[in-house]
Amino acid sequence: MSENGEHRFIKACKGEPVDYTPVWFMRQAGRYMKAYRDLKEKHSFLEMCRTPELATKVTLQPLDVLGVDAAIIFADILLPLEPMGTGLEFSAGDGPVIPKPVRTLKDIENLKPVCAEEQLGFVGEAIRMTRGEIAGKIPLIGFAAAPFTLCSYMVEGGKSKDFATTKLLMAQEPAAWNLLMEKVCRVLIDYLKMQVNAGAQALQVFDSWVGCLSPGDYEEYVLPHSKKVFEGLKDVGVPVVNFNTGASSMLSLVAGAGGDVVGFDWRIHLDEARNILGPDRPVQGNMDPCILFASIPEIKKRVVDILRRAEGRPGHIFNLGHGILQHTPVDHVKAVVDMVHEYRHV
Amino acid sequence: MSENGEHRFIKACKGEPVDYTPVWFMRQAGRYMKAYRDLKEKHSFLEMCRTPELATKVTLQPLDVLGVDAAIIFADILLPLEPMGTGLEFSAGDGPVIPKPVRTLKDIENLKPVCAEEQLGFVGEAIRMTRGEIAGKIPLIGFAAAPFTLCSYMVEGGKSKDFATTKLLMAQEPAAWNLLMEKVCRVLIDYLKMQVNAGAQALQVFDSWVGCLSPGDYEEYVLPHSKKVFEGLKDVGVPVVNFNTGASSMLSLVAGAGGDVVGFDWRIHLDEARNILGPDRPVQGNMDPCILFASIPEIKKRVVDILRRAEGRPGHIFNLGHGILQHTPVDHVKAVVDMVHEYRHV
Repeated sequence: MSENGEHRFIKACKGEPVDYTPVWFMRQAGRYMKAYRDLKEKHSFLEMCRTPELATKVTLQPLDVLGVDAAIIFADILLPLEPMGTGLEFSAGDGPVIPKPVRTLKDIENLKPVCAEEQLGFVGEAIRMTRGEIAGKIPLIGFAAAPFTLCSYMVEGGKSKDFATTKLLMAQEPAAWNLLMEKVCRVLIDYLKMQVNAGAQALQVFDSWVGCLSPGDYEEYVLPHSKKVFEGLKDVGVPVVNFNTGASSMLSLVAGAGGDVVGFDWRIHLDEARNILGPDRPVQGNMDPCILFASIPEIKKRVVDILRRAEGRPGHIFNLGHGILQHTPVDHVKAVVDMVHEYRHV
Repeated sequence: MSENGEHRFIKACKGEPVDYTPVWFMRQAGRYMKAYRDLKEKHSFLEMCRTPELATKVTLQPLDVLGVDAAIIFADILLPLEPMGTGLEFSAGDGPVIPKPVRTLKDIENLKPVCAEEQLGFVGEAIRMTRGEIAGKIPLIGFAAAPFTLCSYMVEGGKSKDFATTKLLMAQEPAAWNLLMEKVCRVLIDYLKMQVNAGAQALQVFDSWVGCLSPGDYEEYVLPHSKKVFEGLKDVGVPVVNFNTGASSMLSLVAGAGGDVVGFDWRIHLDEARNILGPDRPVQGNMDPCILFASIPEIKKRVVDILRRAEGRPGHIFNLGHGILQHTPVDHVKAVVDMVHEYRHV
């Protein structure tokens, strides 16, 4: 906690000066940690997401080990799909499977409205429990998918190499696509607000697959909807991170959707991204998670490079450009936290 | 053929004015065509690549059907791997498998030098045969992978989601990585020169996976090698296309490697790319192949948008930003050729 009672992560989100750069990691709770793997042997991934005691346990696992400046609630971006009526399964190794994909206007019309408080209340409960455990030491981040990323899963029925079905729906049946995005936006805003009501002190919106789109398609079929989500969150009173993967060549466009902080991956230098975003937009990122497999001196070179590129302006949260990979050595992740925290002395 | 004997594709590669925009498609010969699927029932993919009569047949399949302005020899970017000693297999559905991946300095030292004329002569022979069949109607393009893309396959042993092993090798053992890249560059230059000697009238170098890299890693571990390839091809007397996937946020960097023409995907507007590359650099691209599944009017909207963004300067070759997808309707591909050719009348 900083002197005025606000944590450096929150201050950095607001672009305010901090004692040192805050750092957390996407997927900081996960398979690279033994404690997680042990729990995973006894419970399925979805069971862990849906059981507040387990989700809390997982959320807390990395905090003391790493010494990060923020926790992120353990959950999955696809959790809203089940109450919407598409179903949701995780097959070992193959990732998510959506048994009833949404491909026609009728499919879209049949989607059910969601009351997050009732139907996704387990996430809220996990947030309440985690807040109690963290006891104010660091802020807790809630999150959801951005509308495009969630819709792409709904249309494709799972992961996709080319997103051809999604792109075809948007280009070919824009009315159906827009209805789908509107329905999803409503669910996402309600879901994220519920998380804040439950105690989330910041939010992150993940547009994980937006990098498959052309700037033209993004602008026409995605941007207006993403904007609605960020506008819908304006009054929630917590900072919101707008994170996009692989979208560095249309960074000003995706940043235009909103969000207090813009998160991006390693495909652009942090200072170049800031030049595009303007001096007053806080940023989060952007180390390649693969680097965590390298030696400590090599990791340090990369961490210092990012911190140097961020120097001179407040409003930088150190993070990776993607989630921590499965076999990442825990002590390398911990070392990054220390490097970031010690950098102010350099 | 244009009035002065040079085809519009070649003229566009040189940035010279043309009667109308030339168009061809990456993977214009392939599974979306029945003639290809029929042949594929009788022969394996590698057999088709290695048998000049079959490779010629496949190369010719789309030409009259589509009316494209260039042919590209049917081959695979991984063909140089077998003579280098790593082996090469294609498993149905799963893509390429490299049985002996290259991960240590010793592996790299053990790689065999390649004489393209002798060991990859079947590609040259296919080029000679195809040239004979085309009889000067349109130019024939030869191709190879860029050094990074080829090395990433060698290190990963096949496709990869994150290229962690490749990135680790380059960051952790730069001397080994550089030796690998040097050996690969030598093979690629020899292989591409052989293709020109056999009759290729243009070359394309595919950096298909370069989009996984940060600009810093590209600059340090890839650019110097890619440069060597383009420099090594300076005197071959045919235009060279430098094609990169997903690298729009570091376009000036990848273009800096060389090549007469820069090819890129749909993740950047063509006019924005040209602003970055400068007015005199011919460009190739850049429609999303998914659009080919849409209706003809929708396709036309996208084709016209690209052609409008290219207007006012010579030096544009119409293409997709990636290969034609498997179930693409052939008549939609043909329609694009007609749209591009008719655009001059608009």
